[in-house]
Amino acid sequence: MNFASDNIVGASAQVLQALSQANAGAMPAYGGDEITKRVKARFNEVFEREVSVFFVTTGTAANALALSSAVPPYGLCVCHREAHVIDDECGAPEFFMHGAKLAGLPGVGAKLTAEGVSTYLKGLSRAVKQMPPKALSISQVTECGLVYHPDELKALGDVCREHGLSFHMDGARFANALVSLGCTPAEMTWKQGVDILSFGGTKNGCLMAEAIVVFKPELAEALDYRAKRAGQIVSKGRLISAQFEGYFADDHWYANARYANRLARLLSDGLSELPGVRLAWATQANEVFPIIPASMDKALKEAGILYHPWTELSLPAGETIGPDETLIRLVLSFASQEQDVRKLLEIARSAAPRQAAE
Amino acid sequence: MNFASDNIVGASAQVLQALSQANAGAMPAYGGDEITKRVKARFNEVFEREVSVFFVTTGTAANALALSSAVPPYGLCVCHREAHVIDDECGAPEFFMHGAKLAGLPGVGAKLTAEGVSTYLKGLSRAVKQMPPKALSISQVTECGLVYHPDELKALGDVCREHGLSFHMDGARFANALVSLGCTPAEMTWKQGVDILSFGGTKNGCLMAEAIVVFKPELAEALDYRAKRAGQIVSKGRLISAQFEGYFADDHWYANARYANRLARLLSDGLSELPGVRLAWATQANEVFPIIPASMDKALKEAGILYHPWTELSLPAGETIGPDETLIRLVLSFASQEQDVRKLLEIARSAAPRQAAE
Amino acid sequence: MNFASDNIVGASAQVLQALSQANAGAMPAYGGDEITKRVKARFNEVFEREVSVFFVTTGTAANALALSSAVPPYGLCVCHREAHVIDDECGAPEFFMHGAKLAGLPGVGAKLTAEGVSTYLKGLSRAVKQMPPKALSISQVTECGLVYHPDELKALGDVCREHGLSFHMDGARFANALVSLGCTPAEMTWKQGVDILSFGGTKNGCLMAEAIVVFKPELAEALDYRAKRAGQIVSKGRLISAQFEGYFADDHWYANARYANRLARLLSDGLSELPGVRLAWATQANEVFPIIPASMDKALKEAGILYHPWTELSLPAGETIGPDETLIRLVLSFASQEQDVRKLLEIARSAAPRQAAE
Amino acid sequence: MNFASDNIVGASAQVLQALSQANAGAMPAYGGDEITKRVKARFNEVFEREVSVFFVTTGTAANALALSSAVPPYGLCVCHREAHVIDDECGAPEFFMHGAKLAGLPGVGAKLTAEGVSTYLKGLSRAVKQMPPKALSISQVTECGLVYHPDELKALGDVCREHGLSFHMDGARFANALVSLGCTPAEMTWKQGVDILSFGGTKNGCLMAEAIVVFKPELAEALDYRAKRAGQIVSKGRLISAQFEGYFADDHWYANARYANRLARLLSDGLSELPGVRLAWATQANEVFPIIPASMDKALKEAGILYHPWTELSLPAGETIGPDETLIRLVLSFASQEQDVRKLLEIARSAAPRQAAE
Repeated sequence: MNFASDNIVGASAQVLQALSQANAGAMPAYGGDEITKRVKARFNEVFEREVSVFFVTTGTAANALALSSAVPPYGLCVCHREAHVIDDECGAPEFFMHGAKLAGLPGVGAKLTAEGVSTYLKGLSRAVKQMPPKALSISQVTECGLVYHPDELKALGDVCREHGLSFHMDGARFANALVSLGCTPAEMTWKQGVDILSFGGTKNGCLMAEAIVVFKPELAEALDYRAKRAGQIVSKGRLISAQFEGYFADDHWYANARYANRLARLLSDGLSELPGVRLAWATQANEVFPIIPASMDKALKEAGILYHPWTELSLPAGETIGPDETLIRLVLSFASQEQDVRKLLEIARSAAPRQAAE
Repeated sequence: MNFASDNIVGASAQVLQALSQANAGAMPAYGGDEITKRVKARFNEVFEREVSVFFVTTGTAANALALSSAVPPYGLCVCHREAHVIDDECGAPEFFMHGAKLAGLPGVGAKLTAEGVSTYLKGLSRAVKQMPPKALSISQVTECGLVYHPDELKALGDVCREHGLSFHMDGARFANALVSLGCTPAEMTWKQGVDILSFGGTKNGCLMAEAIVVFKPELAEALDYRAKRAGQIVSKGRLISAQFEGYFADDHWYANARYANRLARLLSDGLSELPGVRLAWATQANEVFPIIPASMDKALKEAGILYHPWTELSLPAGETIGPDETLIRLVLSFASQEQDVRKLLEIARSAAPRQAAE
Repeated sequence: MNFASDNIVGASAQVLQALSQANAGAMPAYGGDEITKRVKARFNEVFEREVSVFFVTTGTAANALALSSAVPPYGLCVCHREAHVIDDECGAPEFFMHGAKLAGLPGVGAKLTAEGVSTYLKGLSRAVKQMPPKALSISQVTECGLVYHPDELKALGDVCREHGLSFHMDGARFANALVSLGCTPAEMTWKQGVDILSFGGTKNGCLMAEAIVVFKPELAEALDYRAKRAGQIVSKGRLISAQFEGYFADDHWYANARYANRLARLLSDGLSELPGVRLAWATQANEVFPIIPASMDKALKEAGILYHPWTELSLPAGETIGPDETLIRLVLSFASQEQDVRKLLEIARSAAPRQAAE
Repeated sequence: MNFASDNIVGASAQVLQALSQANAGAMPAYGGDEITKRVKARFNEVFEREVSVFFVTTGTAANALALSSAVPPYGLCVCHREAHVIDDECGAPEFFMHGAKLAGLPGVGAKLTAEGVSTYLKGLSRAVKQMPPKALSISQVTECGLVYHPDELKALGDVCREHGLSFHMDGARFANALVSLGCTPAEMTWKQGVDILSFGGTKNGCLMAEAIVVFKPELAEALDYRAKRAGQIVSKGRLISAQFEGYFADDHWYANARYANRLARLLSDGLSELPGVRLAWATQANEVFPIIPASMDKALKEAGILYHPWTELSLPAGETIGPDETLIRLVLSFASQEQDVRKLLEIARSAAPRQAAE
């Protein structure tokens, strides 16, 4: 049983089917085909407005390209200090932004607050030695599984506008956040001031398909060139757009995300009620971050269950991990099995400390 | 009928099948899976030695990453002035090499000669204002459809060693060159001094699968990091390596390339015997470059046949395109149909000028 | 006797004096001082309008920074193929422009024509694989000693405007061109459409002082940041601006340039009348490019005279260097001595072939 | 009275004199002259071994170039989180290192400990998403005026060797540290494992003269090219090396640094004994960091004394700045006047709170 991430399985049957169908026949290369045109139009519908869309093969490329359109080489991009862009991409943003810097701020649950960002920006020197801030990047879902509420997004969007920053959202788990909030894609992005979005498909059912969705037109102007010089425009371009066609059809993406979130809820609730277990952060999407006894950690591993330990850097104030405890991350996806969740809970229950008689 | 390129169709059935099979089940992400390990071992067999292999999604990324490992930011990379790397990648090599420069040399048929490269290198200033040459990049097949013979490769390899250059081969059409020469992958690469290879799969049957194959170990040292920061390590990595598994199985790649080359030969022979038609360069792989009368060009287009005009920059000495002539490129692939070739020939024949009675 | 370049001597006495005077006392660092403010105002007067000025220590930095403000990393900068920026700066422009490319066009005397540039621009593909042209860079004086006439500049400026390019002038020998033309700084720059200028001081009397002068305001917006991150904002900034104060005082810069040009004329006329000697290009500023007999070359060298051979790449049509001839460059500066010129001429005359009796 | 920095005055008389003397006559450009050769040999003497030396005009350029030779674009450079390289250079290191990242660690007095660095390095992930650490950069004197003892340097050097890092020292105030420790340049650098040094001259008497001194030969290999493409090789190169000739002559640099340190001691001692005043960090070189009452701050400013407030980020554990206190930095240089120090002390004394009768 593998709860390590939501990228450990292949594509969903529906997406794979769409890919296979698109495979036949000759079409213009490099995205000049009809499927790609159709899918781009579909994105307009999804976001209820005209958007510019660029397809790439990885989330890292989506993030780095998006940021490179918003931040000049001498600029600063504000993000959380545990953001994927600063921590997990081997410097891709810095490469694509040509040396621009990421400034990592603290925040519980890997979440930034409008107040925190505003205070940071106001405290920056105006001297030429200080790289000027040009963008804010947040992750929706955050690296600790939390979801920004539209009101929180709006507050951050307002700070961006006030300080002249572009607002980027890393939506690697966009769909999981969306169904968690029950709002529309528009309400979770441009209506709150988001200017550019990494729209993830891979973690929620695609093979390798990520889209950069641009709401602020000037950020789209050179993205084709930037993507090309990054080796990100695949020649058989329809084979990426076709994945999104399958992804969007019959609200497949919503269904996948709802399914993953539901299993996460099941797992989260089950774990929470065990003695000796508590959640580091609330379960709001498809990831669960329990703090468990070391003995339970051992039992789960011995049962062959795969998952990652997690960093304690963004714990809530007052929370600490005891010497005999471990903070872990469990990720659910469209391909996770409810029976696996139940089995994990069973093993965890067996390994839970007996509650002292009251 | 579409002769525009060999990237206008999807994957071959065999490759798509391999992809579908690899799709099922959970496996480690980012290339830590068993399929990827298997395919890497397969590359060792293909090249009859230990090689380092890195998978990416586009030929541009393969080339740019390969060059970035061989050329420091202050270095010079010698190539033909019509090379794909200098002309068709929107500056990807310069981006990945951080501003290193491509020096484009002339040469008939987009081919470099050892003598030409050697003369150029010897003529370079040794002053600090001159970026020092660090790599040679050639395309096998060249941009004019020609194939370097192993002896020519060896001569270029010797020049590289003499001047301390790394030797890169852009093998976007590697298989087409291979079956044209009838030699082994080893004989076409490291045995002649090639240090690093962009091994193309996409044009010859894959969906999106290119490999960087490294023969000089130090060039492989940081490629993982470079690929990661370029957003080129896809999370569901097995879905690229699986394509190569299908590609290699039962010599599928050889069969595909032989098929394409055979059709190119058929087309080339048929066109050559038409009055008013001559070849700009010999047909050695899967591309045909005829110089045709404008009237024939018109007839082909009117029949809905798609292809590109081509540049005259590397014509043989003495050859020129007349005012009523056009130089075009016709590309054949594993998915081309013999009947389409025959139909094109028929249309061309009808449009050919009547030969003057002698 | 050293005719190798105009950067082989120190500063002029007047400039050194200005530097020494500015040395005393405490002043704000990084250009916040009064001298710098004064000199910036002086630049406004010199150019008869509001300009933005940035001081750097080398011409290479001036050029590379100027271009980096005009050309995005995915863009193309058109220049002559013998331009200093493409040939003599070890890739500084590519470094500062983050991989943007220089496209070197041919042209007699290292001079570009509006027609040549226009034809080139129109011939570029509009595909995404083609880096979009963003700037034109010319050298005034050119690398072959020629001067662009204001009409020629205007024609180039018009091409730039038509194609949306920024227009950069490398004015390493700005003053020499200016006094050659007898026009004003304004007439040689922004009045003809020049947007940004590398204004050289070092070759004409300064120690190390170059200025970037910006006429198109948006190109100045980030130059402070770019200069800072390039390590080009010296802390004791007044010591650069002070050089310009001495440079401008009492038209010192004009006098220096007139003197150098006059000596160049003297040398040029003297050489031209010798049998076996002809000029590769007209002498229009402070450099002379004679084609001399090998025997004369030998005699000059034996006399200890220092100078550089020159490249034949931009000779006028029909001109060639014979097997017993050499093309050399002789450079005059404010510090050259008339007696040295006369001595060189004397030696050359002695070494000149006897004219065949007619 | 200006205590804002040690770069607010011009050059010392001796350095200016050396510059003026070197100004006369023609010499090879770009550092090919005799003075430069002499000064390079002088550096060998100063460091008691063969070193490679590269001259630049700013400390930012020295640091950024030095780091670019040690850290590949995908690498990590560890430094203090208040280091000049991370905080005060507008991203110059990131620019020169092509997007490599600076990791800023905490530490009292802007000082890193071997233990802190070691713990950090051991905690880094080995995954490809993590940029690999390649260099350590420290400031000697630190940004809080502290000096690393040779034993501390050795411990850091050992950590570097253990982890395969190059060891860089930002010696903007090298001489001040040297005379503070009373050791030799060798004992403060390569004998403790320092691989590459930014050797500052500007703050201690030069006009604009910084040297990169390389002890690990492979770090010097490409520095000439890197400096050239950074626009840092001034054409009249002798005018930088000549400054160092004056700087070294008769131990001028030692004398300057001793003088500045002595005045700093005088100021520090005088301030420390005032009621309500304490030092944030010990005074070990030419900078004093007193925490003073707001009323004293006001009085000093009203007297026209110039200085900067300082950041509290690296205060010793337990130390805090009260609401009516200010942490300021006072810098002394070779050009500071003892009478100014005494006058400042007098003003401070007048503004000091009366001590409560005991």
